[in-house]
Order: sequence, then structure tokens, then C-alpha cells
Amino acid sequence: MEQLSLFLGISVLTAAVAFAFAAYLYLWVKKQSTVNEKIIEVSALIKQGANTFMRREYKILAMFAAVIAVLIFLFLPSPVWKTGNEITANIGMALSYILGTALSAVAGKIGIVVATLSNSRAAEAAQKGIKPAFLIGFRGGAVMGLLVVGCSLLGVATVLWIVGDASILLGFSFGASSLALFAKAGGGIFTKTADVSADITGKVELGIPEDDPRNPAVISDNVGDNVGDVAGMGADLFDSNVAAMSSALVIAQSLTGTWANTSMVFCYAILGLLASIIGIATARLGKNGNPTNALNSSTYVTTAIFLLLTAGATALFDGFSWRIWGASSVGLLVGVIIGLATDYFTDDSKPIVKKVARASASGPAFTILSGVAYGFISALPAMVGIAVSALAAYKICEPMGEGYALFGISMAAVGMLSIVGMIISNDAYGPIVDNSRGLAEMGELGEETIRIADELDSAGNTVKAVTKGFSIGAAGLTVISLLGAFMSEVNEAIKAAGGTELITGFDIMNPTVFFGILIGAAIPAVFSAMLILGVDKNAQRMVAEIHRQFNSIAGLREGTVKPEYDKCIDIATTGALKELIPAGLMSIIATVIVGFIGGPSAVGGFLLGNIVSGLLLALFMSNSGGLWDNSKKYVEAGNEDGKGSKAHKAAVIGDTVGDPFKDTAGPSINTQITVVSLVASLLSSLFVAFSIFG
Amino acid sequence: MEQLSLFLGISVLTAAVAFAFAAYLYLWVKKQSTVNEKIIEVSALIKQGANTFMRREYKILAMFAAVIAVLIFLFLPSPVWKTGNEITANIGMALSYILGTALSAVAGKIGIVVATLSNSRAAEAAQKGIKPAFLIGFRGGAVMGLLVVGCSLLGVATVLWIVGDASILLGFSFGASSLALFAKAGGGIFTKTADVSADITGKVELGIPEDDPRNPAVISDNVGDNVGDVAGMGADLFDSNVAAMSSALVIAQSLTGTWANTSMVFCYAILGLLASIIGIATARLGKNGNPTNALNSSTYVTTAIFLLLTAGATALFDGFSWRIWGASSVGLLVGVIIGLATDYFTDDSKPIVKKVARASASGPAFTILSGVAYGFISALPAMVGIAVSALAAYKICEPMGEGYALFGISMAAVGMLSIVGMIISNDAYGPIVDNSRGLAEMGELGEETIRIADELDSAGNTVKAVTKGFSIGAAGLTVISLLGAFMSEVNEAIKAAGGTELITGFDIMNPTVFFGILIGAAIPAVFSAMLILGVDKNAQRMVAEIHRQFNSIAGLREGTVKPEYDKCIDIATTGALKELIPAGLMSIIATVIVGFIGGPSAVGGFLLGNIVSGLLLALFMSNSGGLWDNSKKYVEAGNEDGKGSKAHKAAVIGDTVGDPFKDTAGPSINTQITVVSLVASLLSSLFVAFSIFG
Repeated sequence: MEQLSLFLGISVLTAAVAFAFAAYLYLWVKKQSTVNEKIIEVSALIKQGANTFMRREYKILAMFAAVIAVLIFLFLPSPVWKTGNEITANIGMALSYILGTALSAVAGKIGIVVATLSNSRAAEAAQKGIKPAFLIGFRGGAVMGLLVVGCSLLGVATVLWIVGDASILLGFSFGASSLALFAKAGGGIFTKTADVSADITGKVELGIPEDDPRNPAVISDNVGDNVGDVAGMGADLFDSNVAAMSSALVIAQSLTGTWANTSMVFCYAILGLLASIIGIATARLGKNGNPTNALNSSTYVTTAIFLLLTAGATALFDGFSWRIWGASSVGLLVGVIIGLATDYFTDDSKPIVKKVARASASGPAFTILSGVAYGFISALPAMVGIAVSALAAYKICEPMGEGYALFGISMAAVGMLSIVGMIISNDAYGPIVDNSRGLAEMGELGEETIRIADELDSAGNTVKAVTKGFSIGAAGLTVISLLGAFMSEVNEAIKAAGGTELITGFDIMNPTVFFGILIGAAIPAVFSAMLILGVDKNAQRMVAEIHRQFNSIAGLREGTVKPEYDKCIDIATTGALKELIPAGLMSIIATVIVGFIGGPSAVGGFLLGNIVSGLLLALFMSNSGGLWDNSKKYVEAGNEDGKGSKAHKAAVIGDTVGDPFKDTAGPSINTQITVVSLVASLLSSLFVAFSIFG
Repeated sequence: MEQLSLFLGISVLTAAVAFAFAAYLYLWVKKQSTVNEKIIEVSALIKQGANTFMRREYKILAMFAAVIAVLIFLFLPSPVWKTGNEITANIGMALSYILGTALSAVAGKIGIVVATLSNSRAAEAAQKGIKPAFLIGFRGGAVMGLLVVGCSLLGVATVLWIVGDASILLGFSFGASSLALFAKAGGGIFTKTADVSADITGKVELGIPEDDPRNPAVISDNVGDNVGDVAGMGADLFDSNVAAMSSALVIAQSLTGTWANTSMVFCYAILGLLASIIGIATARLGKNGNPTNALNSSTYVTTAIFLLLTAGATALFDGFSWRIWGASSVGLLVGVIIGLATDYFTDDSKPIVKKVARASASGPAFTILSGVAYGFISALPAMVGIAVSALAAYKICEPMGEGYALFGISMAAVGMLSIVGMIISNDAYGPIVDNSRGLAEMGELGEETIRIADELDSAGNTVKAVTKGFSIGAAGLTVISLLGAFMSEVNEAIKAAGGTELITGFDIMNPTVFFGILIGAAIPAVFSAMLILGVDKNAQRMVAEIHRQFNSIAGLREGTVKPEYDKCIDIATTGALKELIPAGLMSIIATVIVGFIGGPSAVGGFLLGNIVSGLLLALFMSNSGGLWDNSKKYVEAGNEDGKGSKAHKAAVIGDTVGDPFKDTAGPSINTQITVVSLVASLLSSLFVAFSIFG
């Protein structure tokens, strides 16, 4: 217990260090100069648009969270009116849920502030060369990375310190997840509505460049990068990180020798954050100046440091097991391998991107068909990687005693997510330099500066694919351990209800389990479809508005009159807010219905089906989207007859299809899986108490 | 036992009746007149192309089958060199495998003969009106339907009669499946290579009509309809039907009161065939002359007759249970419901098709996005339907005793497939009238005749979507019972090896099961991707050839010189033959690898993952493909500004993407799932004997 207090204290301290470092980076970015008036003006528009959207989004989410918090207070961990129930447990659960949503919102909000600060500064720095511009973009992203990891460590440690019961963490984690689900969906719909509309009207119809200020959708496109890719992605990884730690802690609590295991979870998280801080602090653009290499090599440095530090800790502390270290290391290494495999399918220096570009020369149907096919194939290495790491972690830790095998899997997930601070920094770098590219174009900074900004942007795209593979892999491992957490929650509920027949597993030959599996497998598909249709519908509305502006505003085509940017921002905002709740709610309601029909065993199957098809679809959509995006860039770089060619037109269509795949539906599935798993765990006692066939 | 002999005898007799009726229909079609010389010439070309392809395909498959037969003889049911092994069992298994491949090949071959006979006759009959043309198309298809069901009943009954051991039927079923897998893949790649290339060069680039004789790919396109949609689809449903009966018989054998149950399987199959014969014999185009209604209403008539006949048999025979009748009826009804749901998503009088057409007006990216989204959603009703029918069948039959629950599920599959004779007739009708439409155009039969042919063709497309939903649903239920068959085979193998710890199920919390699930789920995606890429590559080759012909053959554009049809046929043939083996082989090898790594429990998980993601992807691809096809037709009928509009161009791109989805990858997944399940069952003793982690 003393050892745990030590680690809880150090956790809070490390979070403080991360916050301090983030503050330093924030001030560093802030003091970089901006002088170009055009850029300052546009940047302010972007900032304003992003803030407006975030304010309206958070208002809706706050109401949603309030309703859920009341429901949690009334029903969880057990109905508040039940005799013998301790009301403090219900209050604790509700408060920890609110804390989860609040911390997630804060991290997202600050991320946006820094991102909208960094974009203009990086654009202007690009005039001086690629090195300073890279550093501003990267450090702006790192503020977000440090905050997210700091908040998750602080939140988990605080809740456990105060409450002392890990299962209350499920409430905290659910808070983080539910906010992430809606933030990701809302931001994803916003960003792709704008992106798709801007591309279709600008690039395809009018043949004007990507960030041409005459395009009424161009500001919304840049706003979208911030609210979707910065805030949404931050919420997503906050959620994954919290879920991985929480499920590891819930399992650790049920083991013999609890405190050493619980300490180990915190120790690994602390060391992961430290490794990320070192990686961030030392990241620089090397002499040859390749930004992709710079981003990737800081990831590898962080990985190596983490493996060394955790090995040191294992040698140093009593009760820390080398087997657990092994499981965690397997997780991290498989994460890197998944990232490399993703890179193979999406990097434009590798053959697949070139093949899709070549297919585009035969027309858009071939772009789509080859992208879908390679997207399907790209799922294999990641699925095998997750399968192998889960099996290896299990087998490594099985000899330690009952329950340790599952703990090993959860520690593999913690290991995979340990360097998440670094991952988020790389990921948030992307939208920042994407914005910079737009600002450089709109501020008329000249061809050389735009070229540099383009190079930084392209690196962001490549690295984003890698980090996405990483986060999907981690989500896969996390939900396996959440499945374990669900089973132990069910058994607690059975015991509490006076039952004796505990569940020992979920047999696929059991028809209620099978029933759950089939329905669970369909849910991620329906969820994705709802998000894609949301983008589809909104984008059609926005395209109509852009056409209206070009047809009715005299002088817009010639660039003598400004377009009405705010109208487009408003369409994206309203549409995203309307569509962000239904898909998430559908997933939650489906879980509840399956639970009340088939009971806990159907829910176990439901979770499995959800995980399996969710992983498959998430990998497919993220990778094919990245592949199309980079194929388009590859053609634009002058291959297959370059810009304006038949191949280019086809590649742009591929990219447009890929946009909601990779930035709306694909990465939201992660969160959908986690939310559903947590809902199942939280409601387990209700499913035990009542179901038709259970 | 006596009762069983009775039913076996009646089975053979019923098969003979089906063959006789098929012969009558064949002669009836044959005696219809053909006088148009142009049509006779083109029809001969199609016939010749189809025969050449089938000959070359069957040659490759014969070699493949020979290798597998030798392997079966050596290893199955147990290694031939093992002491105490009865060599007759190995011979029986190998022979029944060969019989399965041979009967499947015969059914496919005769189907092609009749189809290539019917197409020209239906085209000419369309000059006299829609009624006679419909009847020729339908009866031509019915020959195939009757043959397939007759052959499967005859084959299963004969093998069981001679060998007396149902597990030998797994060999017969594997023969049917492995041939179906390759015939479906090969035919599917052939047909879509030609279709896609013809559409892209003809409709999109040159703006000439669908079946314009100037297009060098037009004959290959018609050949493709026959080898892919007639022969391939026939092999597919032969396989499903045999697999459903075989797994039901294997489970029946393990039950107490075996013979009544075994008799019941045959009785239901016999009555299904009789119901189909009645349905086929009475099918006519009604007064209002809507061919879709005519096809659908004969399906409903067949369904009603089957339900009545089986109820009568249940009342009549001792040992026939009403519970089993209930399970089988649930299966059949859910099949009809799945069909109706599919219809909702793909019929052009329903809203979804119109929505996709509307989206197409905003450009091809929206066609693709909305089609993908609705395709995803369309999977839900079928998945829920399969889940509910499996659960209901299980719960209905559970009270009958141990093992009966699983038997109930297998009888739900038998019920769903009982009317397969009718289903195939409807399905084969499609490609026949599709050909007729082409022949009417090439034979210059005039606008009114082409319009009639078009109407017949459109009905074929709609009904095809329904029958596809049906066959995917049936495959879903069949593989559940094959999973049960796999488990009982594993336990037999454990007992034979002197083991005592039998497998009672596959727990998803077991890491080897989970390992198998994740990898199994990735396989259908990779399998689909390989087929799509096969089409993609071949079509690019064929498009290049068509461009070459138009550029180098003087007078081709004007229609004064004939194109070199045979060059295109040759490209489609060579490509299809090259690509048809790898995808299927990959699935089989993956099963073997997973089995040797993780043992029987990993294979159990592998089968589950395969079923779940296979069903999801098959439904998604079949339905989105059908949806795109009919959206294009809807636009071509004059909606959204009709032919030549922006929406039309986008809709054609959607249709091109959908072609390999719905006719190559989607329906092949069915067979892939079945083959993998059978391979697992056949090799179970090897997995029990050796595996790394098992």
C-alpha cells in the first residue's frame, strides 16, 4: 500500500512536470513572430470558427453528460434506492464520470488554442526555412500530447487515491469515452464536410488550388483540421489511454499481490510519459531535413527509452515481474510493427500508393476498387499483430497464477499506449502544418514557402497513418481486457444478487453468445454508415451553398470580392451538431437491447462481434483513406501525368471518398468499441437481474 | 432403418423426376424457333466462348481435384499407413470427394448449354411480346435449378446409401465446395473483367449503348454472364445445399433416435424439390405482365407449398417432430424476410436507390460514399435475421434432448434452402435475359423488342438481389451447424487418440480461440481483395486492348468492320484462370497454419471470425453492388436528368465499382466460408495430433 501511495504521488508529480513543460512549449510557440496581416486576419477567422464550434459542441455534450451523470447517480454501481446501498458510491461514480468528461474537454480545448496559435507562426517561419517551421508545428502538437497524457495520469491517479476502488475508474473512463465518441464524430463530420466540399468545388470543378481564398469553404476546411484532427483525435487518445489504464487497474485489483501490480500500472504510465517528454524535448529536424524521418525517429527514441526505463524499474522494485515487462514490451513492439505495416500501405515512396495511382489512370472506378482491395489486405498484418501480441502476453503471464494472463494482455495495451504522448504530438503536428500550408497560400508567401509547407504537410499525412495504426492496435488490446473486466463485473453482480453460478467464459457454441456476436458485428458497420451519411448529406448542402456564392456574388471568381466564409462554417457546424449524437446513441442502445434480450452471455458475444468487425472496418477505412490521399499527392507531384490529368481527376475522387473513411468513420470506431465495452461493464448488474433469454 | 431406406429410395426417385422435368423443359426451349441470322451467329460466338472457358477451367480444376483426392486418400479419415486403418474408408472418402466435384461440374456444364440455347430464343420471342420471352428465359433457368437440386439430392442419398456413414458426406460436400469456390471465383473474375471493360470503354468513353456490337468486349461480356452467373452461381448453390444437408446428417447421426432424424432431412429435401417443381411448372406471367411479380410470386407459392407439405409429413410419420418443423419453418421465413430487406435496399422503386441516384448528381464520390454507407446498413437486418433464427431454432429444439438444439439450427438451414430449386431458377433467369437483351440489340430487333428485353433484364437484377440475400443467409446458418460438426469431429479425433478431455465449446476468453477469431476475421477481407484485384488487373489489360482496337482498326468506330472479339475473350479467360486458384488456396492454407499453431480451439475461433466477417462483407458487397447497379438503371430511365447527365456518369462509376463487389467477391465469400469450415472438419484429427499452443 505504501509503495502504491509512492507511485500515486509520483504520478501527480509527473503530470505536473508534463504540464510545466507544456506551458513552456506554449510560451515558446507564442513568442514566435507573426507579421503578415493577411495571415493574422485569416488565422483569427480560423480561431474564431473553431471556438464557436467547440463552444456549441461542448454545450450539447454538457447537457448529454448531465443526463448521463444523473442516470449514473441513480443506478450505479447499484440503484440508489436499494436498501443497504451506500450513496457515497453512487456519488463517487457520478463525480468520476463528470471528471472524465471535464478533463477530456479541457485537453481538447487547450489543444485547439495552441494549434490555432502555431499554424500562423509555422507558416511565417517557413519563409526562413523548413527547420524553424517544423519545430513550431511539432512543439505546438506536443503541447496537446503532453496535456492529454498528463490529464489522464492525473485523473486516474486522483480518482484511485480518493476512492480506493478501481471499479469506480470505469465511470471515469466512461466519461472520457463518451465525450471522445461525440467529439470525434462531431469534429470528424465537421472537418470532412468542409474538406470534401472544398475539394469538389475548388479542385474538381473550378480547377483552383487547394487553399485558394476565393473558395468559400476554405476557412471551414482549416477550422475542421483543428476541431476534428486536433480536438477530436486528442479526445480519442485520452479515452484509449484512460481505458487501457483503467482496465489494467480493475484486473490488478482482483489479483493476489494487488498493490505491486497496481503500482506497476502507474509506474509504466509514469515512465511512458517521461520517455515521451525526453523524445519531445530532443526532437529536431536533422541535417538532411526530412520531416518524416524526424517524426519517426523521435518515436523510436521514445520507444527505446521506455523499454530501458521499465526494465530498470523491474530490476529495482520488489514485486515487479519480468513477465509483465515482457508482455508490455511485446505490446509496444507489435504497435511499432503495426505502424510500419500501415506505413507500407500508405506511404507514397512505397509500391502500393504507386499502384493505386497507376490504376487511377484507367478511371475513378479503378481508383476505388484498388483502394478498397488494398485497404482490405492492409487489415491483415494489424489483425495478426493484435492476435499474436494478445496470445504472447497471455502465455508469458499465465504461469504467474490465476488472472495474470488477462492482466498481461492489459499490460500489453498499456505498453502499446505508453508512448502515447509522443504519438499525439506527431498526430497533432499534422493538422497544424496542414493549416500552415493553407495560410501560406492565402497570405501569398511565395512558391518556395508553399513548397516547404507542402513538404511538412505531406510528412504529417504519412505519420498520421502510422499513429492511427498504433491507436487502433491499442484499442484492440484494451477492449480484450475490457471484455475480461466485463466478465468480472458480471460475476460480482451475480455474487451480489446471491447467485452462485459464475460465468467462466463466453462459449461461441452457446446460441445467446452467438446471437450477440452476429448483432455486435453489424453495429460498427451501421455506426460508420451513419457518420459517412452525415458527411455526405452536409457536404451536399455545403456544395450547394458554394455554387450559390459563385453564381450570385459578382467578382468572387476573379478574386476581387471575398466569399461569405461564415455561411459555410455555419453549415458545417449545424450539420455536425445534428449528426453527432445519433450514431453513438445507436451503439449504446443496441448494447442495452441485446443485454435485456440475451443477458450477460449475449452481451459478451456482442462485445466480441463489435471488437472483431470494428477492428477490421477501422483498419480498412483508415488505411484505404490514407492510401487514396497519398496517391492523390503522388499524382500531384507530377506522376501519371500530374495535375489536371485523367489520373489526377480519378485520384481526387478517391481522396474524397477516403476523407470520411479515414477521418470520420474509421477512427471513431475505436471509441465506439470502447464506449460499448464500458457501457456493458457498467450495466452488468442490470443484465444479470433481468433478461428474456439470459 | 427401414424408414430411412424408404426415404433414400424416394430421394433417388424424386431426383429422377426432377431430371425428367428438366429434360422436358430443355426440349421445350430447344424447339422454340430462331431465324435471325445475326442472332444465330452471335449466339454461336457466345456459346463457343463459354465452352472454351469452361473446358480450360475444368481442366485446371480437374488437376487440382486430382491432387486433393490423392491427399484425401492418403490422410483421411485417418492416415492410410496407420495400423488398424481400414483402407476402404479412405477410398470411400476420396471417391465421394470426386463425386462431389463431378456432379457440381456436370450441373454447371448443362446449365451453360441450356442458357446459351435460351438466350437467343428468348430474344426472338420478345418480338412477339413479353409473355413468351419471359417463359423461355424462366424455363431455361429452371433446367439449371432442377439439375442442381436433383444432383445434390441424388449425390447425398447415394453416398449415404452406399457408405452408411454420414461423416463421409463431408468429403462429398468438400468436393462440391472446392469446385464451387474456384468456379465462382474464376467465373466471377471473367464476367466482371468483361463487364467492367465494356462499360468503361463503351458507355463512359465512347458514349455507345450497352450491347453495341462495335465494342470488342461485348461478346466476352455475354460469355461472362453465362460462365459467372449461370455456372458459377449454380456451383455455389449446389455447394450450399449439399453442405446444409451434410451437416444436418452428420449431426443427426450423433443423436439418439437417429434414423427418424436422418429420414427427416431427406424428407424435407424431397418435399422442397417437389414444391419447387410445382412452383416452376405453374410460373406464368400474369395479365398485368410484371416479370418481377411473376418471379417473386412463384417463390412465395413454393414457400407456402413447402410449409404445408412438411406439416403434412410431420403429422403423418412417426418420429417426425413438430419442433423440428418449427425450426425449419423459422429458417425459411427468415430467409424470405432477408430477401425482402435486401429488396428494400436494392429495388429501384424503393427510396434507397433513389437516394443514391440523387447523391450521384453531386459527383461520383457521393455515389460511392452513399452506396458504401447503405451497403453497411443493409447488412444489419440480415445479420439480425440469422442471429434470431439461429437462437429461435436452438430454443425450439433444445427441450428435445442433448444435441437437438444444434440439429434444429441445421434444419433451419435446410428449411431456408429447401426451395433452392426455385431460387436457382429465378437466379439463372437473370443472365439469360441479360444475354437476350444484348442479342436483341446486336440482332437489330427494333426498339420495342429491346424495351421488352430491358424490362425482363431489370426484373432479373431485382430478383437476383433477393436470391443472393437468401443464399448468404442460408450459408450463415449452415456454417453454424458446420461449426458444430467440426466440434464433434474434433471430439471423435480426441477419443480415437485415446484422449479423454473432450472439447465442450470455444470460449472467447481463451487466448488461442481469440487468436483464431482475429485472424479468421481478416481472411474474407483478404480473399475479397484478391478477387477484386484480379478483376482490376484484368480489366485494365482488356481496356488497353479495346483502346488498341479502336485506334488501330480502321472502320471499327463506324461499324463497317467487326472488332476482334476473340482477343478480349482470350484476355478474360487467361486472366481468370490465373487468378482463380490463389485466393481460395490462401484461405485453405490460412486454416491449416492457424490449426497447427493454435490447435482445435484456435480453429474454432478462426471459423467463427471467418463466418462473422464473411457474412458482414458478403452482405455489404452484394447489396451495395446491387444498389449501384439499379441506381444507374434508375438514372438511365430518365431520372436525375437521365442518360449522359452528370448523375449518369457518376452512377456508371458506382456500377463499375459495384460489379466485382456483387458478382465476384461478395457471393464467393459464401463458398469461402463453407470450404474453410469443411477443411477444418476434415483435418480435425491432424490438429488434435499436432499443434504448437493447442
